[in-house]
Amino acid sequence: MRILLTGASGLIGQAVHRNLSQDNEVITLGRSAHADVRLDLADVDGLNSAALPAADALVHCAGIVDEDFREDPVRAARMAMFGAGALARQAVAAGATRLAYISSAHVYGPMLGHIDERSPQNPVSDYAISHYATEQVFRRYAQGAVTAAAFRPCAVFGALGDLDAFRRWTLIPFSFPREAVMDRRIVIRSTGQQRRNFVGTDDIADSVRRWLDASSSAWQVINPVGDTSCTVFEFAQRCAAISDELATGSCIVERQQPNGPQAGDDFEYASTLQPTTARQSIDDFARGLMSQLLLKAMP
Amino acid sequence: MRILLTGASGLIGQAVHRNLSQDNEVITLGRSAHADVRLDLADVDGLNSAALPAADALVHCAGIVDEDFREDPVRAARMAMFGAGALARQAVAAGATRLAYISSAHVYGPMLGHIDERSPQNPVSDYAISHYATEQVFRRYAQGAVTAAAFRPCAVFGALGDLDAFRRWTLIPFSFPREAVMDRRIVIRSTGQQRRNFVGTDDIADSVRRWLDASSSAWQVINPVGDTSCTVFEFAQRCAAISDELATGSCIVERQQPNGPQAGDDFEYASTLQPTTARQSIDDFARGLMSQLLLKAMP
Repeated sequence: MRILLTGASGLIGQAVHRNLSQDNEVITLGRSAHADVRLDLADVDGLNSAALPAADALVHCAGIVDEDFREDPVRAARMAMFGAGALARQAVAAGATRLAYISSAHVYGPMLGHIDERSPQNPVSDYAISHYATEQVFRRYAQGAVTAAAFRPCAVFGALGDLDAFRRWTLIPFSFPREAVMDRRIVIRSTGQQRRNFVGTDDIADSVRRWLDASSSAWQVINPVGDTSCTVFEFAQRCAAISDELATGSCIVERQQPNGPQAGDDFEYASTLQPTTARQSIDDFARGLMSQLLLKAMP
Repeated sequence: MRILLTGASGLIGQAVHRNLSQDNEVITLGRSAHADVRLDLADVDGLNSAALPAADALVHCAGIVDEDFREDPVRAARMAMFGAGALARQAVAAGATRLAYISSAHVYGPMLGHIDERSPQNPVSDYAISHYATEQVFRRYAQGAVTAAAFRPCAVFGALGDLDAFRRWTLIPFSFPREAVMDRRIVIRSTGQQRRNFVGTDDIADSVRRWLDASSSAWQVINPVGDTSCTVFEFAQRCAAISDELATGSCIVERQQPNGPQAGDDFEYASTLQPTTARQSIDDFARGLMSQLLLKAMP
């Protein structure tokens, strides 16, 4: 298969690139000088007049991230709706009949109770609404020979190529290992009792590959589910324990509101579509990342 | 009740204004010099720093229209998401605990089969996605004392104050009566077999008033359903028949693809929430509008 890939240098995109390159020709699209085809999702007019190379599929891993909304929410929403819309249109014009988008579990709304692909969506933040908008501009093309899918991971972890190039340290799977190493103290602003499902980027990539190989229904939502679900507090404790193993001295976990309002302790993230065959362990990830950070911090 | 109202000079907003003014104090918000409070939904920064007068409710009838997307889709989407978001926030800050938004049946997606409020949403056009975005930024505030609702009418008809000021003649309930009078020929580009529910603006206003008086659940979607559902071809035939009554000579209905692809002949628009107590008749509307147009056309 010939696959157009955006976000190939990003957290999830790197894993998708590695995975799909094994059996497919992958053509990367992006602003970077390393991209096979240079394009900018913020340049809607440019995209509308761009011609993409002939391909069988588009995998869009360059969706909006939280940070985009802190910087310029209007620009981020425009990319999500019109940039992604133009991208999907051009990919279909180039022959793509499979359109995959890496979205977010936030599209379901507040992380409460049992959520699987049959759950109604309820995006409330600008970030979540924008992810949903991208899903729907992809879904627009899901008819006739074209099938499309949205992948909605919850809390994503995975190998970082270059620690210095990474910009998303505020995400919990990254912030806690980093705080454990750097500060020997992990600070949780809430009760920490809200649960999350942690899914590795390689497992997300597997999920995308399985869908590319077997796509059948016109439109599909897929929850890539990792094998670890735990509370934010429990994950902090795991990081602290690993940190204690790796280094001398111990790491403290501090909850700023241990008795504060509790919501999300009943959250259960599930998939009815793809069996969980997760191969990545969050503990291995945390241990690996902390080792990297310790090495880096060495004089 | 003290009610903030946007879109008071628009098709639906005029009817809402008339209706709610009977028992409430209505404060109009908008760009017009006639508005009680001047504000521009496209000026997000201005809205973010605006203070609205104290009120119990906000009724937002100045949502995006099809025409906005033909002119400047990025601007329209920005108004729908960020303009409406700022408006809702400022209304809540001003004390409003009821937020109503006039949305569109297009939020459900293609008009096929039975659709009521329990049907999943599937907005696919930029227009529909943007309406959904406004619904969700309103829904964001639906917690605690604040309740919010989205009203999703299908095909809207209603009295026009000033024919010259009206800009939405391409909507079917308006285009067919006009073509019947002006051209004595109604042209349908499709088979005309797709069904629509036609709802009057006074009935939509009633629906909003009933919700304001009885709002209970935090978030509600309401389909204001009119008492006439028919195919586009049938509506054209009604208009032609009325035109024949009113004027000499007869009106032709032309279908450009009478045997073309058929979709939507099974569409049924319903509400599980509010009983249909429609009082407006689409025939009376068409007759009234055609009489107005004939009078206007007289030398």
